Amino acid sequence: MVEHFVLSAKTFAQQLVRYLPLTKWIATYQRKTFADDLIAGIIVAILLIPQGMAYALLAGLPPQYGLYASILPLALYALLGSSRTLAVGPVAIASLMVNSALSEIAFSGPEAYINAAINLSMLVGLILLGLRLLNLGSIVNFISHSVISGFTSAAALIIAITQLKHLLGIEFPREAYVSNTLIQLMRHLPEINPWTLLIGGLSLSILWLSKGPLCHFLKAMYTPSWLQEALCKSGPMFAVLFGSLFTFGLGESSGVNKVGFIPQGLPDLSLGVINFSLWESLFVPAFLIALIGYIESVSVGTALASRRRERIDPNKELVALGVANLGAAFSGTYPVAGGFGRSMVNFSAGAKTTIASLISAMLVAIFLLFFTPLFYYLPKSTLAAIIIMAVLPLIDLGSFRHSWRFNQGDALTLLLTFTAVVVFGVEIGILSGILLSITILLYRTSQPHIAIVGRVGDSEHFRNKERHDVQTCKSILAIRIDESLYFANTRYVESFVLRHVSQQHEIKDVVLICAAINFIDASALETLENMAHHLQNEGVTLHLSDVKGPIMDQLNKVRFREQLGDGQIFFTTDQAIKTLERRD
Amino acid sequence: MVEHFVLSAKTFAQQLVRYLPLTKWIATYQRKTFADDLIAGIIVAILLIPQGMAYALLAGLPPQYGLYASILPLALYALLGSSRTLAVGPVAIASLMVNSALSEIAFSGPEAYINAAINLSMLVGLILLGLRLLNLGSIVNFISHSVISGFTSAAALIIAITQLKHLLGIEFPREAYVSNTLIQLMRHLPEINPWTLLIGGLSLSILWLSKGPLCHFLKAMYTPSWLQEALCKSGPMFAVLFGSLFTFGLGESSGVNKVGFIPQGLPDLSLGVINFSLWESLFVPAFLIALIGYIESVSVGTALASRRRERIDPNKELVALGVANLGAAFSGTYPVAGGFGRSMVNFSAGAKTTIASLISAMLVAIFLLFFTPLFYYLPKSTLAAIIIMAVLPLIDLGSFRHSWRFNQGDALTLLLTFTAVVVFGVEIGILSGILLSITILLYRTSQPHIAIVGRVGDSEHFRNKERHDVQTCKSILAIRIDESLYFANTRYVESFVLRHVSQQHEIKDVVLICAAINFIDASALETLENMAHHLQNEGVTLHLSDVKGPIMDQLNKVRFREQLGDGQIFFTTDQAIKTLERRD
Repeated sequence: MVEHFVLSAKTFAQQLVRYLPLTKWIATYQRKTFADDLIAGIIVAILLIPQGMAYALLAGLPPQYGLYASILPLALYALLGSSRTLAVGPVAIASLMVNSALSEIAFSGPEAYINAAINLSMLVGLILLGLRLLNLGSIVNFISHSVISGFTSAAALIIAITQLKHLLGIEFPREAYVSNTLIQLMRHLPEINPWTLLIGGLSLSILWLSKGPLCHFLKAMYTPSWLQEALCKSGPMFAVLFGSLFTFGLGESSGVNKVGFIPQGLPDLSLGVINFSLWESLFVPAFLIALIGYIESVSVGTALASRRRERIDPNKELVALGVANLGAAFSGTYPVAGGFGRSMVNFSAGAKTTIASLISAMLVAIFLLFFTPLFYYLPKSTLAAIIIMAVLPLIDLGSFRHSWRFNQGDALTLLLTFTAVVVFGVEIGILSGILLSITILLYRTSQPHIAIVGRVGDSEHFRNKERHDVQTCKSILAIRIDESLYFANTRYVESFVLRHVSQQHEIKDVVLICAAINFIDASALETLENMAHHLQNEGVTLHLSDVKGPIMDQLNKVRFREQLGDGQIFFTTDQAIKTLERRD
Repeated sequence: MVEHFVLSAKTFAQQLVRYLPLTKWIATYQRKTFADDLIAGIIVAILLIPQGMAYALLAGLPPQYGLYASILPLALYALLGSSRTLAVGPVAIASLMVNSALSEIAFSGPEAYINAAINLSMLVGLILLGLRLLNLGSIVNFISHSVISGFTSAAALIIAITQLKHLLGIEFPREAYVSNTLIQLMRHLPEINPWTLLIGGLSLSILWLSKGPLCHFLKAMYTPSWLQEALCKSGPMFAVLFGSLFTFGLGESSGVNKVGFIPQGLPDLSLGVINFSLWESLFVPAFLIALIGYIESVSVGTALASRRRERIDPNKELVALGVANLGAAFSGTYPVAGGFGRSMVNFSAGAKTTIASLISAMLVAIFLLFFTPLFYYLPKSTLAAIIIMAVLPLIDLGSFRHSWRFNQGDALTLLLTFTAVVVFGVEIGILSGILLSITILLYRTSQPHIAIVGRVGDSEHFRNKERHDVQTCKSILAIRIDESLYFANTRYVESFVLRHVSQQHEIKDVVLICAAINFIDASALETLENMAHHLQNEGVTLHLSDVKGPIMDQLNKVRFREQLGDGQIFFTTDQAIKTLERRD
């Protein structure tokens, strides 16, 4: 009985380690590690509080919702996530996507809007968990790097443009398209509030100064590294303090737009009103928010983990991010993800484990309980400045130049995704980027590279006769097809072979080198059979060589060898050419 | 001046040959060839007249419209087409597709329906010509053989089911879905007209008898082959004669549904009312009709041409079929294509050139001018029998069995296309088949076959160590990736390599054999660079071997070699392994 209990306790412990990565290292957790985590946790919190409020405004929600999204979701990720340094919470890109997904609901009033945001969080969480359950996490692989890159740049640009009105102190209703936002900006330009613009400009300067020059100065002064780290990352907090004091000093008559009253206290844990008809219309945006959030989190997490020879588990990330988003829904707020900026800060501030995140979450909770009244005078233009400084580095022109040089199809995808996101919005943009990248892929494989090869010197090696100095035999046409054979390219290959045979009457044997053929589908099999018969009618024999194991198995199943007539399937091209040369 | 004229006349002649394939052989046309073409033309006309009327009914049009589609389009194809024996005209599958495309317009009355059919022909013609102009004919390659096969079987089944009501003499309005048609059939079963059923049954028997037993009998009796051919193919005409006489004998009281009055005379050449708002809603069905019609025509044409060592030019076919469909629009009727059945008859009846088609067209015109009153008593059940006998051979179970054995992905596509066409209709069915075949392709390439290879004996040949008896070296991991590297599989490959390296601590060198890598995109390049750095951190060096020319060019452009650190790019795997073994 006792034994059984011990056994099941052991199994339970194993299960715990399996599902809660935190339990793996918590037993050996040391005071020194805690000190590191504490400092990192504090630094991230100092960044997180102003960013959280700013991103909530970007998502179209009151500022406290960004803070609500920074407590429970962080804590849940800290328990379940496989990355030790990923900082989960409200992020800029997801905030923009939420704004765009809910833009139509904005007309039904703020309560409906908040409720829709909660439903969106729930949906994002369930989609992530669903992908894990169905083992479909690899679906994100179909969003190419070019699509992500084009989308991120475009989203950053859109975010920066939407913040201009706050920076200038202009008021106009939100617009669905960037072009309209720009038109509105032009139209309302005379209404600029000079105080707002001044505060915004000074906030931008403070942010820029604390990022670059201040850091260099502190380094030059041999400041202790933890202090240096803390001061360098506190730019947003400095800007917030400055902006609030300035606005307070100006008094109410200045017309500067303030954050105003932020309700004190933690969010109520509830689930809002679950609205299934809403789920239907929110499914596509939720899916995209889930995928993009997951990709961003996993890539940041992987990059950071590899610097410390740790690894992250993409499947655990699906679960952790899924549960974190359900946590956001329970906290009555909008979807979260692992952010690039704060994760980098967390890592470089020395965070060793997810305890750092728990500390950040706790500090945000304390802030919500006691200190929100301090931010009554916080001007929105300061928050806009924080957002703009956070997203500008995401606009990545280098990536376009690099991919243009390497492969123009990728560059085209990047460009189209960027343009489509800017012109038609987030969802259409991403979807058309994905579509284009798949179309380019299909187009490419539909017209494969085909090389006529010959023997390199006396070796057993055969290479393209156009690129290398090789020996060929007039009666043998040795062709290497650099692509799997399937429905989209089978006719192209067939006409290549038949054209060459009809042009050179000396050819008696055609050897199809299958070293690069990784797969043959039913359409291609039929074409191969037809081609063999066709060639036979013209007195030419078709042979194969270098056929890979999996394909040979397939061909044997349908007795392809019999279709070849006098043709043979050779183990290597070398054997094929030697045998055929001897025969002639 | 004269010289210039001669020159331009020569150029003109060359252009003529280029655009009118007919001019190539017309100069050497002989009396013997004409005799062959004449017989084939007559036989095809005998088949075409009843089939044309039947298919028009299937398309939801009065019977004469099938005949209208059998004059000008045939003549135009005869001038422009590169196939000498393809029989263009109304075909069963396109008729079904037209019916399905126009089903919603049926409620606006017969005139609107006919006008929509004319617009559809125009659209199909313009799409085919547009594909030629944009050089996009290869787009049809993306419709896999499995999709075509599943679609054709399903369409044949649907056609047979829709004809049952005519065969039974039941009347009910057309239904969009097969399931509803079946329900209606059950509901109206008590209303069967016994005379209609009798005529239908006898028509089926006549068709069956003339196809099989009659032919065998004639062969056994040593009948001259032209007569034998003509009598064997005249089943539909016999059925028509029998049905008409029988119905005439029964008198009006029998309640047998007749074709009735067919207006005498050729179609007016006009263009109907061009309706651009209609074009918008008809675009997708028109696109599918164009593609499917083109694929059917080209495959039949290719099959027949190859039997006589002729070749057809897919680009010329696009033009010829496009113009033929514009001809259909001018004749005030519905889209045409190259049909499987009549083309086979044309070929086996001995047609040598497209003169045979011109003769068929002329005979149909003569029929329309003088003989339509003869068909007043033609029962619709006979036409239904003709359709059913024509489409039943298209239901192809063997193709499913074959592809199930060779490759289950293809079999799945076939099955899904078949099911979706039967359940959801023609357009959704084809589109979901295409989507599935592309998804399967992407899924397959996203998880490529990866082999750890070793040297075969003392050769320079390296093969999978799981399949062959090969020599490997403990400190070298030689991996052959059997797929191009691109966004969807790059993470899969990376984790495969890293997993193997972390499991075997003896590994010092990783050789990536790129013989089967036909392409590397920007996402994959980034992954390769990351992987190289990652491995270097763990004291392992990444090398490449057997890199193909086009990829080497690409890698050189971005100075990939520098990213490899100590790693090298070897010309062959043999050199790589020899060099690395020596070094250890």
